[in-house]
Amino acid sequence: MIKLIVVGKLKEKYLVDLVNDYSKRINKYYKLEIIELKDCNIHDEAKEILKHVNSRDYIISTYIKGELLSTLEFTELINNNLTKGNSNITFIIGGSDGLDEEILNISNKLISFSNLTFPHGLFRGILLEQIYRAFKIMNNETYHK
Amino acid sequence: MIKLIVVGKLKEKYLVDLVNDYSKRINKYYKLEIIELKDCNIHDEAKEILKHVNSRDYIISTYIKGELLSTLEFTELINNNLTKGNSNITFIIGGSDGLDEEILNISNKLISFSNLTFPHGLFRGILLEQIYRAFKIMNNETYHK
Repeated sequence: MIKLIVVGKLKEKYLVDLVNDYSKRINKYYKLEIIELKDCNIHDEAKEILKHVNSRDYIISTYIKGELLSTLEFTELINNNLTKGNSNITFIIGGSDGLDEEILNISNKLISFSNLTFPHGLFRGILLEQIYRAFKIMNNETYHK
Repeated sequence: MIKLIVVGKLKEKYLVDLVNDYSKRINKYYKLEIIELKDCNIHDEAKEILKHVNSRDYIISTYIKGELLSTLEFTELINNNLTKGNSNITFIIGGSDGLDEEILNISNKLISFSNLTFPHGLFRGILLEQIYRAFKIMNNETYHK
């Protein structure tokens, strides 16, 4: 299973639709679960996140100072885990203040998509699109749009 | 004026709404025009793009091998141009095959937002969000979401 733990509600309907669209597309390849937590302060958010983390899962947190990956590197990261028995990957996206150090410390990998700061709602859609893209690539399907 | 020349139609309604939302937000700060061209082949796309380019404008093309900017560097790029008399900036986003070399050659700056490949429609929203973010920063307004 691929699990996304995310902080903060989506405010705009178009973001909800974007996230739902890619969630559906991913679900055709792999079971996906999204856990949306309330945003409060970064420490309380961390406590809530930890309740949903299974330490046996491979934990990937998104962090602006994390490793900048290409689409193929991101695909490899997912593929390597899913084929090496880590059949559960948990992605964590922080709220507007980012992620507490505790979450960064328990992560197996810190990744960044950009040197730019994105709104966390839009970022959720960007991450899901990229997970979907990874599955298309893993399945040797063309995906060009 | 800030002009966006983009190739390819938006297929999903949520992308239209995303683009419209940020267009409206940017228009409160600066005149924005979006020119959407049909996607065909990369050479014909280039010809069409050139019809809409004013060579006196500062031309920024988005290109995966371009310079990876941070939000502050992107803001500075816009701010420097708008305050130094280049009151017109033209952004160019290619279609699914990217941009023809001719377009890259006439560009004043090639920028990249990520090492990842994004769908061009979603990328349009990401670019507009970042332009909006830049105006918020230039106007010393907080923007945190």
